[in-house]
Amino acid sequence: MKGKRLDFFLVSHPPNIYYLTGFTGSSGELVLGQEWGVLITDGRYKTQARAEVRGASVLIHKGPPLEAVGGVLDGRRAGTLGFEAEHTSVLGVRQLRRSTGRSIRLRGHTGAVEALRAIKDAEEISRLRAAASLIGRVFEKVLPLVRPGRSELELAAEIEYQIRGLGAEGASFETIVASGRRSAQPHARPTSKLLRKNELVVLDLGAILRHYCSDLTRTVYLGRAPGRVRSIYGAVREAQAEALANIRPATPCAEVDQATRRVLQRHRLDRYFVHSLGHGLGLEIHEEPRLAAGIKSRLQAGHVVTVEPGVYIPGFGGIRIEDDVLVTRDGAEVLTRAPREFLEL
Amino acid sequence: MKGKRLDFFLVSHPPNIYYLTGFTGSSGELVLGQEWGVLITDGRYKTQARAEVRGASVLIHKGPPLEAVGGVLDGRRAGTLGFEAEHTSVLGVRQLRRSTGRSIRLRGHTGAVEALRAIKDAEEISRLRAAASLIGRVFEKVLPLVRPGRSELELAAEIEYQIRGLGAEGASFETIVASGRRSAQPHARPTSKLLRKNELVVLDLGAILRHYCSDLTRTVYLGRAPGRVRSIYGAVREAQAEALANIRPATPCAEVDQATRRVLQRHRLDRYFVHSLGHGLGLEIHEEPRLAAGIKSRLQAGHVVTVEPGVYIPGFGGIRIEDDVLVTRDGAEVLTRAPREFLEL
Repeated sequence: MKGKRLDFFLVSHPPNIYYLTGFTGSSGELVLGQEWGVLITDGRYKTQARAEVRGASVLIHKGPPLEAVGGVLDGRRAGTLGFEAEHTSVLGVRQLRRSTGRSIRLRGHTGAVEALRAIKDAEEISRLRAAASLIGRVFEKVLPLVRPGRSELELAAEIEYQIRGLGAEGASFETIVASGRRSAQPHARPTSKLLRKNELVVLDLGAILRHYCSDLTRTVYLGRAPGRVRSIYGAVREAQAEALANIRPATPCAEVDQATRRVLQRHRLDRYFVHSLGHGLGLEIHEEPRLAAGIKSRLQAGHVVTVEPGVYIPGFGGIRIEDDVLVTRDGAEVLTRAPREFLEL
Repeated sequence: MKGKRLDFFLVSHPPNIYYLTGFTGSSGELVLGQEWGVLITDGRYKTQARAEVRGASVLIHKGPPLEAVGGVLDGRRAGTLGFEAEHTSVLGVRQLRRSTGRSIRLRGHTGAVEALRAIKDAEEISRLRAAASLIGRVFEKVLPLVRPGRSELELAAEIEYQIRGLGAEGASFETIVASGRRSAQPHARPTSKLLRKNELVVLDLGAILRHYCSDLTRTVYLGRAPGRVRSIYGAVREAQAEALANIRPATPCAEVDQATRRVLQRHRLDRYFVHSLGHGLGLEIHEEPRLAAGIKSRLQAGHVVTVEPGVYIPGFGGIRIEDDVLVTRDGAEVLTRAPREFLEL
């Protein structure tokens, strides 16, 4: 706050509030001064806030917590209140201005708490490791059910059931089971479509365990795959290996993405790799850093990212391989455990 | 748009985009002119957008869709672009300004598409009815498992498994199973706590079926309940009945909430009813109209709302009863089917 010349900072994004205070409610605003913090929430979260919040006092406000920000600042000297520009809507800023009045200047900042969250400490790494390990076990348990005649929805339900059954709070995103031509949609929602022989099946699954996310993708084939499918799979696997080999502190995030694309280019598949290579993973399923073209930051020890090259050919199908990776002091440690060889079931 | 003197309108909120175009991807911006629409999305959603979008053309942009808004307006005469003030972050507006340049004026509006969405048409009512019916069946299937020795998490997993098993896309929110003292937290997350004899158990569950949500809460007792628990249950049930009796077109939303509170006041329980009475239900689990103090709007035929009074006594426990209700031409139709009498299991 000092570096940014702010007197107060308002944290609105729930994962940021959890990170700083431990509060897990969905309605809250955290007002920070130089040496104090007040979490504002509503009556529904009274018991919960008192049990969870550390390092801040709790104020219960009847109504939207944003309305009470002005009251918290009242009696303190006038000054500048920073807020989260990417998490505060234009409407929210209007409400904030109404609440704080004229003596407080408002200034939007981005990524302040996210920058702290990007570097994981030992406790966070241990939780991410546990979430990654759990999702590998879910994959193993579900694999025998990936058979012709099952529907995508059935499999997704089974995956989410196993996620809970192994003790996770739930799925970290909507489970993807995409078969046949539908696998060419990177973000396909599972449907009632039945799996058939001679089809690709993309399974993209993740768990939240003690608030931390995992994210794993494997692509399998039902039956004996044609040569083209095998060779595309091989190319995606090679691309992922190249990415992993490039991950270490100080490597530019964009460079890891670029290195992966070069492998696919050699196989003339780069134009089918329609998304970025990966994203940070932590309290949220998508966070800093991004492994993508145009990103200016560099990898640092303590980053945890997904590495997920994919090739999607409309009318033909898609293949994606994804693992979660911790950036260590001298390289990369893959946290997810699941077979990476091509599975023909 | 004419009434608001806008030349263009930008729709950013995914459920609003789905409502207007049928597009279900998570990354998109819909630019509307008086007689045209362009949906901007990224490469991951190319196949999907082309299959789903109706009434708008599709533009694939490499990068955040907001960047491409200016390009869509290019070559059209300068004018005013309305945007969704509650769904556009301060950062988003900065990006939008960069994209559109100086010739376009930006103006924030709230609730434009939401107001359309609040009144459900026949097709939407039929989907909401199906989602409500499905969640009633899930409750029925899960009830025999609500026994001492089961954990809250196990039960929540079972509920979500059944939701999928009966053909829904998934849960419409994180399932709540809160037992014993934990039931005093209206938004308790399920934990590894085991259900015990002589405890209240609050089950709050919902499904998304063909994109429309349902939301059902029942509170049961494990064993024979003490008189105080029964009498509180009776009061909550009476409060809900009073709410239902007040629901019809033209009744102020705040009045339905108030009438419910009066019943609890007679039982000296109103101070334990710490949230509002209900919320609209549709593509989102919380939408217009809200049944709460201070809301100025009135009920209209075609509204679908939850009616969910609750009493939460810290250290003792909580009781909530919730149903989904369609406002008809002359009253209310309860869409959810599940026993409302007090269940002692």
